[in-house]
Amino acid sequence: MAFNITPIGIIHSSIKHRSDAPRQGYRGAPAVTIELAKDMEPALTGLSSGDDVIILTWLHQSDREVLQVHPRGDRRKPIRGVFATRSPDRPNPIGLHPVKILSIAGCMLEVEPVEAIDGTPVVDIKRALRR
Amino acid sequence: MAFNITPIGIIHSSIKHRSDAPRQGYRGAPAVTIELAKDMEPALTGLSSGDDVIILTWLHQSDREVLQVHPRGDRRKPIRGVFATRSPDRPNPIGLHPVKILSIAGCMLEVEPVEAIDGTPVVDIKRALRR
Repeated sequence: MAFNITPIGIIHSSIKHRSDAPRQGYRGAPAVTIELAKDMEPALTGLSSGDDVIILTWLHQSDREVLQVHPRGDRRKPIRGVFATRSPDRPNPIGLHPVKILSIAGCMLEVEPVEAIDGTPVVDIKRALRR
Repeated sequence: MAFNITPIGIIHSSIKHRSDAPRQGYRGAPAVTIELAKDMEPALTGLSSGDDVIILTWLHQSDREVLQVHPRGDRRKPIRGVFATRSPDRPNPIGLHPVKILSIAGCMLEVEPVEAIDGTPVVDIKRALRR
């Protein structure tokens, strides 16, 4: 059994290669532009600059067969299961990116910070929860 | 273009119907058991009771055509785009559930709280980030 996940947009970033990406957004990742599909524009109603949202991406260059890794790629660290890490290599390579919206114009959103590389598909945007 | 998302396990919960589910986990949702596929066990190495993780689910009863909703189902509230909400109805119905692990035994994890219904597919588990 499997489900189809359909990109709603794409990330435009100055980060072109996975080896240049910081491990998390808050580790110095840049602002990026999200170009949403035109038919998604109604789903943005109510969002504006300054809002905190979570961007979900499909980390398309990931290795989905990997179940264990050395944390942060450090081979001196004991091996861990990918579910105990934020490794992009995992069975379903969904990226979670807590960001702030810098601007919205039509289907173009500028948000920061995002460590995903240029061309990464975006699959969802969710309001960040404040408890 | 679409990607295949493959369940890694399933949720066993006392919540049997979507109408009985709280809107968020922290609104009184119960502990649930996650039954992972046997071949996923190596991916759990390093996780233990008390750990904070994020469970990602595929909200399989969602309506993927919905782009706008009344927040919290309240028709007096102005309509919003689903990306400005946590509505389960959205183009790619991925659920995010911040939980604490209560126990792990083989491929069975008890975690709380989770508002997803019994039978909901699990698609990923990620370490919660502490900055």
